[in-house]
Amino acid sequence: MALEKKLKIAIGGASGETGMSIINALLDSPDNFDIIALVRPESASKPVYQDLATRGVSLEIIKFSDIEAMTSILTGVDIVISCLTLLQVAEEHALIDASHAAGVGRFVPSFFAVVCPPRGVLTLRSMKEDVLDRCKRLYLPYTVIDVGWWMQLSLPQVPSKRLDAQISVPDTIIGADGNVPTAVTDVSDIGKYVARIVADPKTLNKHVFAYGEVTTQNKIWAAVEEATGETIPRTYLSKEDAEATMLQLKEVAGKNPADMPSLFKLSMLEYKYTWGIRGDNTPEHAAYLGYLDAKLLYPDVECKSVGVFVSEIVEGARSATVYKNRDDHPVTMLQGKV
Amino acid sequence: MALEKKLKIAIGGASGETGMSIINALLDSPDNFDIIALVRPESASKPVYQDLATRGVSLEIIKFSDIEAMTSILTGVDIVISCLTLLQVAEEHALIDASHAAGVGRFVPSFFAVVCPPRGVLTLRSMKEDVLDRCKRLYLPYTVIDVGWWMQLSLPQVPSKRLDAQISVPDTIIGADGNVPTAVTDVSDIGKYVARIVADPKTLNKHVFAYGEVTTQNKIWAAVEEATGETIPRTYLSKEDAEATMLQLKEVAGKNPADMPSLFKLSMLEYKYTWGIRGDNTPEHAAYLGYLDAKLLYPDVECKSVGVFVSEIVEGARSATVYKNRDDHPVTMLQGKV
Repeated sequence: MALEKKLKIAIGGASGETGMSIINALLDSPDNFDIIALVRPESASKPVYQDLATRGVSLEIIKFSDIEAMTSILTGVDIVISCLTLLQVAEEHALIDASHAAGVGRFVPSFFAVVCPPRGVLTLRSMKEDVLDRCKRLYLPYTVIDVGWWMQLSLPQVPSKRLDAQISVPDTIIGADGNVPTAVTDVSDIGKYVARIVADPKTLNKHVFAYGEVTTQNKIWAAVEEATGETIPRTYLSKEDAEATMLQLKEVAGKNPADMPSLFKLSMLEYKYTWGIRGDNTPEHAAYLGYLDAKLLYPDVECKSVGVFVSEIVEGARSATVYKNRDDHPVTMLQGKV
Repeated sequence: MALEKKLKIAIGGASGETGMSIINALLDSPDNFDIIALVRPESASKPVYQDLATRGVSLEIIKFSDIEAMTSILTGVDIVISCLTLLQVAEEHALIDASHAAGVGRFVPSFFAVVCPPRGVLTLRSMKEDVLDRCKRLYLPYTVIDVGWWMQLSLPQVPSKRLDAQISVPDTIIGADGNVPTAVTDVSDIGKYVARIVADPKTLNKHVFAYGEVTTQNKIWAAVEEATGETIPRTYLSKEDAEATMLQLKEVAGKNPADMPSLFKLSMLEYKYTWGIRGDNTPEHAAYLGYLDAKLLYPDVECKSVGVFVSEIVEGARSATVYKNRDDHPVTMLQGKV
């Protein structure tokens, strides 16, 4: 698909899981997109950025807090995509101000997660809503993209440990009875959707839900059991137990808002609560919450199914490792501590 | 226009300005609507409710905090409309829980004001967003209706004082240079729109902007001058002065969140700031913020123009008095104190 006009896209946080998925998809359409990676000085030496440069991505080494310099870089840019984590929320707010000052045509804030009500369910979501509210105060054109829960974070390990090396962040506990519907996506597929969404006038100032498949924890665990021939022991988390633990964690996190490990420990539990127990993360709830459905917008985009994803992992054809070599990422920081 | 099915509508806060506008419009279509007024015990003796009863409105005397009793009353009700003020925000939250428990088909929260970004501009708006967020956590079907600024609050008094009795809450200060576009609505017209919106499946889980006319303060003041032949002295409020005063008022209000007079003093200034200085309250900004436009949805609804409204006031054919006999209303409480 060729666009009428080539789009100039700048990405912050390009080296993360979501950022790389998006960059890979954009690089697949060199006639459609010019890509700029916004790189913080402390990240400039990472090999991943040198690799991106050789693949045709322009690097801009820039302090995100330097709004004047950032504005200069973003002038003439059509689209800014933020893949910053919430550890860099101050940088994301600065990126919004610079995008506004530069007259950027569309800002994609760093959502890229589950669908859930805006506030009162998931602390990280509330922080993202604050980011979106900043866009709205400036009338900065935006598109929110959520992608459901990652397949890469949805697989249980098996008793033989044969999948341990391929699953870096395993799913360890079943929410409710395991039959709660939830939308999951292969991280590799995120970029394919994003490349379509950001070039589409219909998605301007809208939310879009771009996911692979609606499934349940029971279905995913059964798929792994079938593919491996192993029986995976179950541990269950009830709504009541989840709520009681979240209450405790909120008290700890509330006492010191700068205590990031506590915030992210709470967040991982809140994630399981919203998609695995409340069941927020579905296309039906997305429709209620005002999202457009990417499956209806782009029926030709082919996504990996859970069945194929599990087969590929079990056959060793690919891995579900995420957050590797990212010692600064909260999920890695918390590994084994949640 | 006859609906296929008669709708059962319950209204909280029916005796207020917005509530009465809505009730009057619903009573104009007795074949379409059965109307229940939800009346707090302390308001039951008001003559206005006895009057509504004689006009065919069913009264339900009920403590809004009694969710079980409220649920019972709302069972079988199609639509709940809240016209509660933010002094009754706890009651509105209870009304949402009861509406959810009763399976109400549509909840209209008490917005009915200017269009502006959800958070960080207008404190009262943020409180309304909290109300909406509660609906969303419950997936309660909703429609947000905003109506712009009231014409009744937009008229300046004239030096001869001949309009003083007809204008109970005059406009006293010009925001910026007076040329900021803003949408205004005759309170009497609100109900005509609401009767259409709540019966329309297209507006379910949406925001709708239902306004009379886009104008400016300069145009309104000039219309009053032309109709009276008087020259009205101007006082101007700059963006910088408004922001400095809001900062001071926020400090006071922040020290004691229960200090309602301070909150509402801040709010009146924030209102002028958003519609008269920032210029948020326009159809273009509403479109960006995701609102449907009632003028496009219902082009046959005829609204009062500013010109006709001013003529009627000056000729004595009607008054622009609002909040009369409402000693409990914040605007009345603050009269002369802002």
